[in-house]
Amino acid sequence: MKLYDSRRAPNPRRVRWFMAEKGIENIEVIDVDLFKGEHREAGYLAKTGAANVPALEIDDDLTITESLAICRYLESLYSEPNMFGRDPRETAVIEMWTRRAEMLLATPLMMTVRHSHPALAALETQVPEVAENNRGSATKALKFFDRRLGESPFIAAERVTIADIVAAISFDFAKMARFAIPEEFENLIRWRTEMLDRPAAKAGV
Amino acid sequence: MKLYDSRRAPNPRRVRWFMAEKGIENIEVIDVDLFKGEHREAGYLAKTGAANVPALEIDDDLTITESLAICRYLESLYSEPNMFGRDPRETAVIEMWTRRAEMLLATPLMMTVRHSHPALAALETQVPEVAENNRGSATKALKFFDRRLGESPFIAAERVTIADIVAAISFDFAKMARFAIPEEFENLIRWRTEMLDRPAAKAGV
Repeated sequence: MKLYDSRRAPNPRRVRWFMAEKGIENIEVIDVDLFKGEHREAGYLAKTGAANVPALEIDDDLTITESLAICRYLESLYSEPNMFGRDPRETAVIEMWTRRAEMLLATPLMMTVRHSHPALAALETQVPEVAENNRGSATKALKFFDRRLGESPFIAAERVTIADIVAAISFDFAKMARFAIPEEFENLIRWRTEMLDRPAAKAGV
Repeated sequence: MKLYDSRRAPNPRRVRWFMAEKGIENIEVIDVDLFKGEHREAGYLAKTGAANVPALEIDDDLTITESLAICRYLESLYSEPNMFGRDPRETAVIEMWTRRAEMLLATPLMMTVRHSHPALAALETQVPEVAENNRGSATKALKFFDRRLGESPFIAAERVTIADIVAAISFDFAKMARFAIPEEFENLIRWRTEMLDRPAAKAGV
């Protein structure tokens, strides 16, 4: 298997972090330079079908994109530590929180950066109102996640799951838009510090 | 089990459609009136933890939100017809396409409607630039899905999967923003007609 990766984008980092939590080291990692447009080259598109990173080449017949599809597939091969749930009930709770992290934090924070950071003007027709609207959406979600993290050590379970990886990376990426978690959200700050202290947080950063 | 549903929103329809494909009829369906704010009432929030529909009350201890988490959980109980994949490889492909349908179509089309339809001004501080930007994103994705549907009868597999349900409902909801698939996208139009002709497409519509 081969992982097509990029150090500059948030979604490939999800896979690197996930692999590091599981100690997966036997997958070849190939860097794709987004600013050189390598993700739009014919050879890459013939494999992936879409100009996206990350992508996992499973074999000659199948390459998949989408960070969460890649991580769930890897979990089927490398089961421990479990990150997606051990039974249907736990899987449902983790998927619910992963989607909340994606829809309420990761997507709006990514859009905030894409529509406001000067370095990304080459990749996006930037609209200031879109950046501001998304910043507002993410800000509104902080209270919700802070409350959750006052009740639970991690977002979806008593242990780190894929939901935590999605959320932690979104806050890290949002530094590019000068988005910071205000100090009043003590539970979020506590959780974020714990997440960034994990060895896997440094994978490819 | 009980399903908290709303006829007016697109995401609850995913669960109704999914249940109809599987012939699930023994789950009590309770209507939540979003315009009366029933999803924000204390009793509802105590169960779901979030002001969202749909929600599935699994038992006294667990209610989950998020349409796809609910559908995947239901698939663990009602396995046929399979909608999420029969093995890790197929599950990965279906999840990849479901996420593409969600990120490239469902989310931008939902944002287009929420930020432009007069009836939704009560639920959203509408920003015209956000509506236009999302309309543009969804329009750009049509070619991608049309090409895919020229190669495959359905979006993710040779059969209907959850990816098709997500995409088909997003186009139906987008009629509220006068968003239509242009006739040049023949494969998309062919697929959409087939999807809307399925008996399950009428579930609760």
